[in-house]
Amino acid sequence: MKIEYRCSRCGYTIEATSWLWQCPKCGGPLDLVIEGLKFTLSEYRGLWRFSSVIPAKPLVSLGEGFTPLVKADFLGKGSYLKLEYLNPTGSFKDRGSAVAISKALEFGAKAVVEDSSGNAGISVAAYAATASIKARIYVPKDAPEGKKTLIRSLGAELIETSSRTEASRVAIKSVGPNEVYIGHAWNPWFLQGTKTLAYELLNQIGHVPNAVILPVSAGTLLLGLWIGFNELLGFGLINKVPRLYAVQTQGFADLYGRIHGEYSKEPTKFADALRVSNPPRLGQMVNAVTGSGGDALVIEDDELLQAWKTLLKRGYIVEPSSAIALSGYMKLLSNNYIGSDDEVVIILTGSGLKYIDIMSKV
Amino acid sequence: MKIEYRCSRCGYTIEATSWLWQCPKCGGPLDLVIEGLKFTLSEYRGLWRFSSVIPAKPLVSLGEGFTPLVKADFLGKGSYLKLEYLNPTGSFKDRGSAVAISKALEFGAKAVVEDSSGNAGISVAAYAATASIKARIYVPKDAPEGKKTLIRSLGAELIETSSRTEASRVAIKSVGPNEVYIGHAWNPWFLQGTKTLAYELLNQIGHVPNAVILPVSAGTLLLGLWIGFNELLGFGLINKVPRLYAVQTQGFADLYGRIHGEYSKEPTKFADALRVSNPPRLGQMVNAVTGSGGDALVIEDDELLQAWKTLLKRGYIVEPSSAIALSGYMKLLSNNYIGSDDEVVIILTGSGLKYIDIMSKV
Repeated sequence: MKIEYRCSRCGYTIEATSWLWQCPKCGGPLDLVIEGLKFTLSEYRGLWRFSSVIPAKPLVSLGEGFTPLVKADFLGKGSYLKLEYLNPTGSFKDRGSAVAISKALEFGAKAVVEDSSGNAGISVAAYAATASIKARIYVPKDAPEGKKTLIRSLGAELIETSSRTEASRVAIKSVGPNEVYIGHAWNPWFLQGTKTLAYELLNQIGHVPNAVILPVSAGTLLLGLWIGFNELLGFGLINKVPRLYAVQTQGFADLYGRIHGEYSKEPTKFADALRVSNPPRLGQMVNAVTGSGGDALVIEDDELLQAWKTLLKRGYIVEPSSAIALSGYMKLLSNNYIGSDDEVVIILTGSGLKYIDIMSKV
Repeated sequence: MKIEYRCSRCGYTIEATSWLWQCPKCGGPLDLVIEGLKFTLSEYRGLWRFSSVIPAKPLVSLGEGFTPLVKADFLGKGSYLKLEYLNPTGSFKDRGSAVAISKALEFGAKAVVEDSSGNAGISVAAYAATASIKARIYVPKDAPEGKKTLIRSLGAELIETSSRTEASRVAIKSVGPNEVYIGHAWNPWFLQGTKTLAYELLNQIGHVPNAVILPVSAGTLLLGLWIGFNELLGFGLINKVPRLYAVQTQGFADLYGRIHGEYSKEPTKFADALRVSNPPRLGQMVNAVTGSGGDALVIEDDELLQAWKTLLKRGYIVEPSSAIALSGYMKLLSNNYIGSDDEVVIILTGSGLKYIDIMSKV
C-alpha cells in the first residue's frame, strides 16, 4: 500500500512517511492518496474489521465502531437511527481517534496535542490514555464543565483558552519534538477513521440507503462518509453515493452559507459540539454535499430542543447537538426533499449522558 | 416452545401465560422452565441474534447487546474487558429490560412499575419509552441526582421514597390493572435477557474463558450468566461453565456473608449501584458461585477508588461500582485464585458518563 499526502488546495504531493497535518507549501488541508486499496473484511473486531482499507496498523482500540443501527418505526418506514453515541467515549469521534492515534504511534509520537470544544478532546484523551502516551488538550473556557472534568480524569493535561479559535492557535504553537498535533478538523488520518462509517452502513444494511442525515460542524464525519462511499463506488460494491444532508446550527452555518448565502443568527446556546467557524475543509464539504445530491440546512435552538426531548422520550440518550439531525429529517420530509418511502439513516453523534446537568433545565 | 414458571423455593409450577414475578403460593422467586429450547443465530441484530433461546418476541430494542470485548493487555495476557457500559442506556441492565419489556407488551401491559437505585430505573424508563407505554419508577431519595434527572427526562414518572427497601414496598403496592411490576431482582424474564451475555462471550471469543469476574448486588447478571452457560453446556456447545467470581461492595455483601461469614463494614460511599440488601435470589446466587467453582469477595471503597482511577486513566469511562470488578481481578491474581495465564473476562457494567459530577471530587 503506497500512501501519499496531497494538498487539497495546491496539489503538492509527498510520500506519507511522517506526520503532517497541513501542506508544507501553501498551508492547505491534506488528503491521502492510497494506491492499491483492496477491500476484504478482517478478523478484527469493531472498526478494525475494515482494516484492509485503513492505512494504519491497528495499534489502539477501545472497542469503537459497529455501533447499533436501529429501525426508527416512529419516523418513516425506511428510517434508521445510527447510534454513534454508543462509541467508547460517547461520540463518533472515536473512529477518527482510533486511527489517528494508531498512526501517531506508528510514527513514533510520545505525546499528542489537540484543540476541541469537548467531544474530540475527550476522545483523543481516552485513546492517548489507552496507548500510554501523553495528551495535551486545549479547550475554550466556556466548554461544558463536565467535558473538561472528563478530559482531566482521563489523565490528559487540560489547558483553557479565551476562545475556540485561540485554543487552536495556542495548541498548534505548543507542539514540541516527538509530539504531534491531532487537529481533527485538519487531520487526514482522522478521516480514514470516520470513513469506516460508510463501510459499516453497507455492512449492516446490506446496501446503501438513499440518504444520510447528520450534524455537521468541522465536517470530519461528512467527509469521512464522502470518502468511504466513493471508495465503495470505486470497488463496484455500490452504484451510487447516498445523498448527504448536512445539518448545521444557528451561528455556525458556514457550509450552509457557502451554498445558500449567509445565515446570520445569534450563536446556538445548546449545540455546543457544533460551534466551529471557518472549518479548514469547507470547500471539500461543499463538494461532498452537492456532489452527493444532498444539501445543507440550518436548525435553530427551539427546534433543536423539541427534537432533543422527542429523542429522550423515545429512549435515545443523545446530546443536544445530535438532535438537530432529527429536526433536519423532519424539515426535509416536510419540504419533500426526502419521501416517506426513502430509506434514510439519521446519525446520532454524541451521548446525552454528558448533559444530564442541563436536562432538568430545559 | 412450552414455558412454565417454577418456584425456586416450593417448586410450584404453572404455565407462563400471564405476568408473574413471585410465586403465588409461597412468595418465592420464580424460574422459567423452557421446553424444546434450540440454539441457532438469528438474523436480528444485537441481543436478539440469540432470539432462538429467548422466550419472548423481539418487540422492543434500543440496540442492546454485542457490546465491545477488548483485550486488556495492561493486565494478564489472557484478560478481556467486556464493555457492558456501552449498552444503550449505559448499563448491562438493558439486556434484561429489552426482554422483560418485550414480554410485558406481549402480555398486554399498558404500564410498567419498577424500583431501583438508578441504572435499572433508567433502563426500564428508556425501554418503556421506546415501547410507548408508561413507566413509574420508585427510587430512594438518596439516589444520585443525575440518575433521577435522567429517569424524568426519559418521560417516566419518578417517585422518591425514604429508602431502597421502601421504594420496593411502595412500588409493589402501587401496581394497578394493566400494569406490571418489573422488579428486576425478582423478574424471571429479566434473567432471560442477562443470560445472553453468556452466549455472546462464546460468540465473541469462540470458546468460553476460564473465569468471569463481575460486580454483584441483586445477582441479575450473575444468575443470567449461570443460566446461559448451563444452557450452552446442555447444548454441548461448551464443556464447562467458567468460574464465576462475584465481587461485592462494603456494607452490601450478603452473598459473601452467606459463603464466608458476615462481613460488616460501614456502607459504601461510592458503589451506589450495588446497594442492595437481602436479594431475593440469594440462595441461587450462592449456588451459581459455588457451582461454577468460583467465589465471592468484597472490595472496600479505597480499593474501588484506586481501580476506578486506573480504568479512567486507561480510557475506560466506567462508573465507580464497575471498578470493583478490576479490584477483584487484582485480588484474585495476588491470591493465586486465578493465574496470569488464565483467560479471564472482567465485566464493566455501568457508564462513568453518569458520574462526571463526582470525578472532580475524588
